[in-house]
Amino acid sequence: MASPVRPVIALAMGDPAGISAELAAKVVALPEVRDAADVIVIGDARVFAAGNQVAGIVPDVEMRDRIDDRPASTRPIFVDLGHLDPAGIEPGQATRNGGEFALANFRAALKLGKAGTADAVCFTPFNKSAMRSAHPGYDDEIGYSQEVLGTSGPASEFNILDEVWNARVTSHVPLAAVAGLLTVDAIVEAIRLTDRSMREADFASPRIAVAGLNPHAGDGGNFGREEIDVIAPAVEAARRAGMAVEGPFPADTVFVRARNGNFDAVVTMYHDQGQIAMKLMGFDRGVTLMGGFAFPICTPAHGTAYDIAGKGIANIGATRAALLLAARMGAARRGRLLS
Amino acid sequence: MASPVRPVIALAMGDPAGISAELAAKVVALPEVRDAADVIVIGDARVFAAGNQVAGIVPDVEMRDRIDDRPASTRPIFVDLGHLDPAGIEPGQATRNGGEFALANFRAALKLGKAGTADAVCFTPFNKSAMRSAHPGYDDEIGYSQEVLGTSGPASEFNILDEVWNARVTSHVPLAAVAGLLTVDAIVEAIRLTDRSMREADFASPRIAVAGLNPHAGDGGNFGREEIDVIAPAVEAARRAGMAVEGPFPADTVFVRARNGNFDAVVTMYHDQGQIAMKLMGFDRGVTLMGGFAFPICTPAHGTAYDIAGKGIANIGATRAALLLAARMGAARRGRLLS
Repeated sequence: MASPVRPVIALAMGDPAGISAELAAKVVALPEVRDAADVIVIGDARVFAAGNQVAGIVPDVEMRDRIDDRPASTRPIFVDLGHLDPAGIEPGQATRNGGEFALANFRAALKLGKAGTADAVCFTPFNKSAMRSAHPGYDDEIGYSQEVLGTSGPASEFNILDEVWNARVTSHVPLAAVAGLLTVDAIVEAIRLTDRSMREADFASPRIAVAGLNPHAGDGGNFGREEIDVIAPAVEAARRAGMAVEGPFPADTVFVRARNGNFDAVVTMYHDQGQIAMKLMGFDRGVTLMGGFAFPICTPAHGTAYDIAGKGIANIGATRAALLLAARMGAARRGRLLS
Repeated sequence: MASPVRPVIALAMGDPAGISAELAAKVVALPEVRDAADVIVIGDARVFAAGNQVAGIVPDVEMRDRIDDRPASTRPIFVDLGHLDPAGIEPGQATRNGGEFALANFRAALKLGKAGTADAVCFTPFNKSAMRSAHPGYDDEIGYSQEVLGTSGPASEFNILDEVWNARVTSHVPLAAVAGLLTVDAIVEAIRLTDRSMREADFASPRIAVAGLNPHAGDGGNFGREEIDVIAPAVEAARRAGMAVEGPFPADTVFVRARNGNFDAVVTMYHDQGQIAMKLMGFDRGVTLMGGFAFPICTPAHGTAYDIAGKGIANIGATRAALLLAARMGAARRGRLLS
């Protein structure tokens, strides 16, 4: 999707003990990424050089020690915060130093987004336990972004493949707690945020399917009543509010239908309901988007892959997809701001 | 997998208002099915003729009005119970007549299995509400088979693709009830039945993965404790009993690993955990096996497809796979009996 507006993306380097530096090197070298956006990589030049060596490439970037304005040329910029010597990092180990490195890069990227210097933020994978050693209050990327940006509105994580988006109503909670957390308001909010985020990604009227909770979507109340009592009323309320939403559908066929092109998105009730499907459909291509912020925040859906750190074999697919989604959403956002 | 033993399969025609008669016609005509087994189709010759017409083929079968002994030739046999005129059946409608037809065929097939005339039983899809109008106590195929065969031991439904088997610990219950139903005994029993059924299908030592219940398999107890308190002890008990079992694994990646060849089977904790994955991996090829009986009972995993009844476009893949699995398991069973 070509856009006349060229977006700026701030790319924060992630955890230094896994594949994050390798991915940063590889993705900034991709011609399609350079074509789609002006990229500002944020990290330490020594960590980046180590990533280049692992990747076996030397991407052409302009080194700076800070950036305050939107880039004047299309050559990628590397902002060297000079805060980590990779010699002190053990591959495959989650450390406080590694967490502090990733957090500082992410914070700087978010601030570029807030200032309008960047239209979207990306990051290569974080290690949650390293983040927590560096910042004990660190819960997840959404909470941290709200903290840095000083916002508190509804925000949610989306999982995205080319074919289909997935948002969920509940996430990191015990399965036994899920049914009790489902309310009409919570489901309508998830549908609304999906609709809004997809419109920001240039879907004119995203076709959203809502999954049921129980086997066979409850089989008319035989295997649970949440579909009748909570989910169907939420779908109806969202439809009345003008959204192109249908359901609840049995969870075991709704992704088959979405993959076949019947829907653009599936709203699921719990973590694995969507994650089982999305990982099977595209383990190497999945993108995670934090939606509900003033600008898109994207990352590959996979983790730091400590087991293949330093080997140069990291698959760039998901990081490439994250950058290109950020570029598309960032361009659309910039276009709205300029029009 | 060629076997020196030629098995006999009793194939019951399913619900007459959907694609079941078309599938029976198509599958009995397949050369690979005729090569693999002696098939005895059970139904009404008029319903079969109508299915032939929809399928646009006339399979060569020997018409009989009953069968008591194992077939003497390799030509498929059709046992005409003469109990349903298809002129009275409205396509796409679940009726008591349709249910009675399917039930009578299934009962006759089970009796051939019990008598040793057949080594395995298959059926083309049933419609559950038609079955219930015909037989109000009808719960599912397992319960009905136990009723007809007079057995009561542990039995379970497996979902099978070429690559991977799936068994589940709980099935048609509300999601909110799942956690409370998980016990060490129930999980060990599911693993044991999986191991046994797969050995009956000629796996020497099936590699079984067990899924967790909670997101990220509980993340060390952060999102639920069932993995620590119940699932891991069950896996350990099964391993001590000599089974090649591992887990609990996060549900959202265990099927990716199984598809990649790391495991032969996944034992899941609830219905959709396995069904979401299996339907995405092979919607058109999935087979359901009732395990725990003296002989295998197989059917395509899909339903009666009332929406495409009479169109001649039903995909034969899953029914073909069901017959070939029944042939493989039936031959192995016959071989054990004869040796």
